Amino acid sequence: MSGNTLGKLFTVTSFGESHGPALGCIVDGCPPGLALCEADIQTDLDRRRPGKTRHTTQRREPDQVRILSGVFEGKTTGTPIGLIIENVDQRSRDYDKIKEQIRPGHADYTYLQKYGLRDYRGGGRSSARETAMRVAAGAIAKKYLAQRYGIGIRGYLAQLGPIRIERLDWDTVEQNPFFCPDPDKVPELEAYMDALRKEGNSIGARITITATGVPPGLGEPVFDRLDADLAHALMSINAVKGVEIGAGFAAITQKGTEHRDPITPAGFLSNHAGGVLGGISTGQDILASIALKPTSSLRLPERTVNTRGEPVEVITTGRHDPCVGIRATPIAEAMVALILMDHLLRHRAQNMDVKPELSPVPPHPGGTG
Amino acid sequence: MSGNTLGKLFTVTSFGESHGPALGCIVDGCPPGLALCEADIQTDLDRRRPGKTRHTTQRREPDQVRILSGVFEGKTTGTPIGLIIENVDQRSRDYDKIKEQIRPGHADYTYLQKYGLRDYRGGGRSSARETAMRVAAGAIAKKYLAQRYGIGIRGYLAQLGPIRIERLDWDTVEQNPFFCPDPDKVPELEAYMDALRKEGNSIGARITITATGVPPGLGEPVFDRLDADLAHALMSINAVKGVEIGAGFAAITQKGTEHRDPITPAGFLSNHAGGVLGGISTGQDILASIALKPTSSLRLPERTVNTRGEPVEVITTGRHDPCVGIRATPIAEAMVALILMDHLLRHRAQNMDVKPELSPVPPHPGGTG
Amino acid sequence: MSGNTLGKLFTVTSFGESHGPALGCIVDGCPPGLALCEADIQTDLDRRRPGKTRHTTQRREPDQVRILSGVFEGKTTGTPIGLIIENVDQRSRDYDKIKEQIRPGHADYTYLQKYGLRDYRGGGRSSARETAMRVAAGAIAKKYLAQRYGIGIRGYLAQLGPIRIERLDWDTVEQNPFFCPDPDKVPELEAYMDALRKEGNSIGARITITATGVPPGLGEPVFDRLDADLAHALMSINAVKGVEIGAGFAAITQKGTEHRDPITPAGFLSNHAGGVLGGISTGQDILASIALKPTSSLRLPERTVNTRGEPVEVITTGRHDPCVGIRATPIAEAMVALILMDHLLRHRAQNMDVKPELSPVPPHPGGTG
Amino acid sequence: MSGNTLGKLFTVTSFGESHGPALGCIVDGCPPGLALCEADIQTDLDRRRPGKTRHTTQRREPDQVRILSGVFEGKTTGTPIGLIIENVDQRSRDYDKIKEQIRPGHADYTYLQKYGLRDYRGGGRSSARETAMRVAAGAIAKKYLAQRYGIGIRGYLAQLGPIRIERLDWDTVEQNPFFCPDPDKVPELEAYMDALRKEGNSIGARITITATGVPPGLGEPVFDRLDADLAHALMSINAVKGVEIGAGFAAITQKGTEHRDPITPAGFLSNHAGGVLGGISTGQDILASIALKPTSSLRLPERTVNTRGEPVEVITTGRHDPCVGIRATPIAEAMVALILMDHLLRHRAQNMDVKPELSPVPPHPGGTG
Repeated sequence: MSGNTLGKLFTVTSFGESHGPALGCIVDGCPPGLALCEADIQTDLDRRRPGKTRHTTQRREPDQVRILSGVFEGKTTGTPIGLIIENVDQRSRDYDKIKEQIRPGHADYTYLQKYGLRDYRGGGRSSARETAMRVAAGAIAKKYLAQRYGIGIRGYLAQLGPIRIERLDWDTVEQNPFFCPDPDKVPELEAYMDALRKEGNSIGARITITATGVPPGLGEPVFDRLDADLAHALMSINAVKGVEIGAGFAAITQKGTEHRDPITPAGFLSNHAGGVLGGISTGQDILASIALKPTSSLRLPERTVNTRGEPVEVITTGRHDPCVGIRATPIAEAMVALILMDHLLRHRAQNMDVKPELSPVPPHPGGTG
Repeated sequence: MSGNTLGKLFTVTSFGESHGPALGCIVDGCPPGLALCEADIQTDLDRRRPGKTRHTTQRREPDQVRILSGVFEGKTTGTPIGLIIENVDQRSRDYDKIKEQIRPGHADYTYLQKYGLRDYRGGGRSSARETAMRVAAGAIAKKYLAQRYGIGIRGYLAQLGPIRIERLDWDTVEQNPFFCPDPDKVPELEAYMDALRKEGNSIGARITITATGVPPGLGEPVFDRLDADLAHALMSINAVKGVEIGAGFAAITQKGTEHRDPITPAGFLSNHAGGVLGGISTGQDILASIALKPTSSLRLPERTVNTRGEPVEVITTGRHDPCVGIRATPIAEAMVALILMDHLLRHRAQNMDVKPELSPVPPHPGGTG
Repeated sequence: MSGNTLGKLFTVTSFGESHGPALGCIVDGCPPGLALCEADIQTDLDRRRPGKTRHTTQRREPDQVRILSGVFEGKTTGTPIGLIIENVDQRSRDYDKIKEQIRPGHADYTYLQKYGLRDYRGGGRSSARETAMRVAAGAIAKKYLAQRYGIGIRGYLAQLGPIRIERLDWDTVEQNPFFCPDPDKVPELEAYMDALRKEGNSIGARITITATGVPPGLGEPVFDRLDADLAHALMSINAVKGVEIGAGFAAITQKGTEHRDPITPAGFLSNHAGGVLGGISTGQDILASIALKPTSSLRLPERTVNTRGEPVEVITTGRHDPCVGIRATPIAEAMVALILMDHLLRHRAQNMDVKPELSPVPPHPGGTG
Repeated sequence: MSGNTLGKLFTVTSFGESHGPALGCIVDGCPPGLALCEADIQTDLDRRRPGKTRHTTQRREPDQVRILSGVFEGKTTGTPIGLIIENVDQRSRDYDKIKEQIRPGHADYTYLQKYGLRDYRGGGRSSARETAMRVAAGAIAKKYLAQRYGIGIRGYLAQLGPIRIERLDWDTVEQNPFFCPDPDKVPELEAYMDALRKEGNSIGARITITATGVPPGLGEPVFDRLDADLAHALMSINAVKGVEIGAGFAAITQKGTEHRDPITPAGFLSNHAGGVLGGISTGQDILASIALKPTSSLRLPERTVNTRGEPVEVITTGRHDPCVGIRATPIAEAMVALILMDHLLRHRAQNMDVKPELSPVPPHPGGTG
């Protein structure tokens, strides 16, 4: 593959299949002196962990992380941090029956075409299980960003199928299995998901991530723009089909007078840009949204071919998320954290001596634009 | 910046400011033996060139490209290809008056914060003028992809402000200044743009790119997925605020039975995936759409601050595109070409010996999903 | 650090401290379909393993490697290969006494200056123990190179202190603890090392590596030349202070008529170039030599300072190699294998379609130039 | 090639053939605010320039550099710096006669094998002419290192064929065409070179580079060690066959008590390490030496084959350096400057907040170890 490393200075390189002995990653470039223990990482892993409610896959994985290097006497040493999570609840037999089947909407076909062979157990490397290591690595970035710069990265479910969530109450987000920020919408989500599960179908979702306290100046134009790297990182999450920064696709119908964010000495008056101008952070909140497709693993039959090219009908039993978007919030937060961390290091490398004559303009209090 | 190189094996590194002496780039990694001359590159540069109609900036730049290396006796040698375009029509004085102004919605503020100083002449490096070199480099990738693999990359204007273009007639695209694929919509676009120009305002747009004939297998999960790298490349274009692959944000309200593309021995039955599954090309058409924001350079006044932080009112005269989306089609095509080229090289490096037992499944004839 | 990844397409990223719970690495970019099991890797690990004879450190590490991913049903899948080796025989207490001491000739001082803190247990990350993962990763490259291209990579001890080994009998190399290619020199080496150990001192060494069967064309000028990347990889081994390709420093006193290798249809007549011209492999044997310094861990006292900058006298007990060169042969072989593997992938990415009109010139049978 | 970029944060990407219209490079990642003009770069270009004395090639190239971007109002802006040098004195006809000949000891054979075709005019991309852009880029790094950190990088001719230069008088280095640091040796060098030229032969040389004032902490183990990256950069120079750091190959016969550099509160007592321990700078002088082979372009005949594989005799007329080492000093200085610059940026990215409790130990005044 040779594509399993993310970042340039703060790098994450990961390995591991859904049904192999373990998943792991190496975080290289973490500044020394950061207080770090396994509990710091476990918190986010638990937020992503499957099997917690009836609305997610019933695979039961404790996702217990171990730090194998890079931390000494409770502090990061500046050397690579090795992380590992043992797989516990592999039920490979679930997959024997689809060993020869090419599941529509899955990577079965493309892995077979690319590599000539595949680990068919739960999608092998293409399984969303791989995202556990993203969350683990992201937790380290999150902690550094919070402690050193006061940056906060949070996400929420903005839409699930037809259900749009308009109200944003951060306190609610962690109090329901959907990362839904509107308490009044939770019962509706519960009902919708129960019906969907009964139907045997799946549904898409929209997740929105915000990063507050990001200093102005992060991003390396013209190619490694902050928004471009965020798009790369977010689109690299399984099932993501779209990425927006700030106004996103709404900008198509906006006029310039409406979109450009006015500036006053008291601060920006709006944030349609989503915290990025010219590929560089403005100091306003970073606002990113992603669209996740519905999983294709359904017990409802569909036409496909087998590895010999013969037409067959596929039915996926096994254990799956009827809405992969439900557990995607901590994953998307992690990706944003990893990109911000990498760009912070890149920025200070070149510009640590810069003293702008113009003091930073305060962000628009509203946040979302 | 240190972010001016795109690609891993087929790399483009660019330089140049809007009002400096010249723009240039180095294309490294082009396979040897490709017949290449300046005319091959000039064709796409002319498609992007400003000042051709009243609907784009009146800056008159011939954008004449020169090949300085990497081509010998009409063929690429495998060594780096140096390209240069001299700037001709710089009217820097246009910018003296805004020397101290921070234009809202522009990179003025972020460059000043990041670097402590800026080239204020036409946005310097942050000017869309930089995209000329993307188009030049992309033209080389396009030619190789077409000749060696029969890959075709084309784009069109899918929406301009409120005007959605539903009909797709490829022959029309190059016959109007908007890259509009529906001949019946052209008068409407003309009228809209004339009114907009009179009003002194600008508008956003949507561009859609398709790549046909892409072999299955391109993409390097889990981070350098083909869709992720496309998102990075497309989001790195000035003014882009959103990227979609295949169904994109429409996938939010789709059910699994609707989104997953059924497979039969005769071929795929739809292409909601947009030609990518698990981050790897399926052999179906690659479908990508981008949202471009309206330019913030308007003669209509707006509140901002100057470099001393004092409140001022800014009015941008100079020469600008009232809809940057109009000239974005060749740029977006180039970015897709560069990413496909890079992934083709990466794929064959690792997998040149792979002989999949399953022969490729034909793409869905419809193309768009 | 952010410097723990080697290679561009065939990448090795490693982690682990001398006295942490485990060492590990991720090998990304290995072609799919290679038959691979732990025994393939263990063979080279055992060649490097400490504690086998009285001439190397008495630390007893089984160095048992586990494959955690990337191999399915006995074959590589093309996905990242996770490798891990648990540390077993850590005697950290050996190091408590030097906790505050800055050992001369060691990385204690530089790590403290760079990171502000250090894992003082056996040098932490700076320990030669880290090289175990290089050997493990190299074994995978070696197997692919041998099976797919018939490339053979072997090394030997060319000099130990004052003892120069002139005769090259490959069969002898693996039959003595020194990787000495001259059976008649083994007793002399035994005697020298016994005396050295009694004295409590250490000594330097020269190792020579040859790669046979390397096809012409590997190397990416002008910076990523094959010889340059070999120099990087070999100099990155602990204790290495010099690298030579072919004639190396002897070229200083050579005249052009003597150095240049004549070519005849029957083959090259010599190999002073060491298999590389213009940074690209010639198809002749790759010849590389390295100089290893004597270890500074001695029980003989030396002046130094402690972490408070006070003058102290240091004596290193613990367990050390009196000549680190003795175990360096498999490590150097691994580094050469990793570079050749990476360049093979890079070369075929760009040039897989190249058909040179001139058929390859046979190498000089003698090998060494 | 895809190997024409050096560095990770301070990157140099170059292009250009010996007989093409121009050479150029892009320097990306230079910190903003550095006062820079063409004269700053020209100084080092002139030190390398051919045709100044009878001892170097008679090709007359002014090597006039132009800055095309990245500098505004006399200061670097932080954006990529485009540099270009037009080729003036191309006498391609000199090369027509060897169009079909494979010159022994040259890259003719390897380029043909790798790319299937080659630019035979003066070696095309493999010509040492390419090093002009290394010197240009290095001059920018040199200036930043000197102004911001007080780092000084200087080199000298340490040996030319049989003539070893022992005495080091820095004032002499720039006062003779050989960069010889011993005034008494200059007549001997003149005489030797005159005889060599009459004979029609060429000779090898040793160049030594020192960097003073380098702060401790630069280098990214375990692979991107400072010494490893220096080895890479220096070995990437045309004709270099060997690289040494500090004691280099002399370390083979040293004992540990002799090699390790004792430390006292007053400073290091020697510098056999050459300023690098564990791959990280110690704060002592960086000491690196390289061996350059004799050029193979001779008017003395040699056996070879032509592009059809037939045996022919080659005689190289044209214009060449009888000792490429003579002009190598500024090139080697540039490579050391580029690596130090890159590592300074990398180091501060991760470790800018580090405050070591132990204050830096003064370097050994002697410098050379």
